Amino acid sequence: MASPNPVIKSKQKVNEVNGILTQVVCTDFNNYIFVVLTQYGKIGTLVSITPDSRSNDISTPTVSTKVLLGKDEPLTHVYAKNLATFVSQEASNRPVLLGLALKDSSFDAIKQMTELIRSCKVW
Amino acid sequence: MASPNPVIKSKQKVNEVNGILTQVVCTDFNNYIFVVLTQYGKIGTLVSITPDSRSNDISTPTVSTKVLLGKDEPLTHVYAKNLATFVSQEASNRPVLLGLALKDSSFDAIKQMTELIRSCKVW
Repeated sequence: MASPNPVIKSKQKVNEVNGILTQVVCTDFNNYIFVVLTQYGKIGTLVSITPDSRSNDISTPTVSTKVLLGKDEPLTHVYAKNLATFVSQEASNRPVLLGLALKDSSFDAIKQMTELIRSCKVW
Repeated sequence: MASPNPVIKSKQKVNEVNGILTQVVCTDFNNYIFVVLTQYGKIGTLVSITPDSRSNDISTPTVSTKVLLGKDEPLTHVYAKNLATFVSQEASNRPVLLGLALKDSSFDAIKQMTELIRSCKVW
């Protein structure tokens, strides 16, 4: 087995989203992209986003989401899918571990946060 | 509520432990210290280590461990406790999220890895 890359790639960024300080940290592990998106400085709810192996149609990707830590609410799955599906796709279908601690999860905020995650591309 | 610190503190280190390249990444979130200890570049088994609130005796700290992701094996809990209890204690009893992907989990290796984690102190 090849040795792992000695440096684990990690990027972080802070930006205001609708006036709220929003932090993103993205770290590239071999088997997961780890993303924390937080407006509280916390890891928050931890969700795994796994590409669906039955989906062969690249135009309609499907992912499975599972809450590992924190409150399991239906909307959390929706936010996780909206925020992290593109990460998994761009990272050769690697699963994503996403920590979410949001004050503002409006459609507009989620859209801006997706771009914030994109600006911390480590995959 | 106070604004979160704009910079999320993170440190990483690579070292050989008994001849095996070992990577550590420690990240300081408000509610968790996130530690990945890996000899495969992977996040591996994800374990939460939570201080037991009933323990008031500082000389005999007790923690609860829970496997959130990956194989739930009895020894994983033992390794997690040995590696991360001191982190939780030093971080004012904050819980620890620990990713473990080890080739060598001998007593001697675990001891060296504890020092490796200590060298990435972000708490």
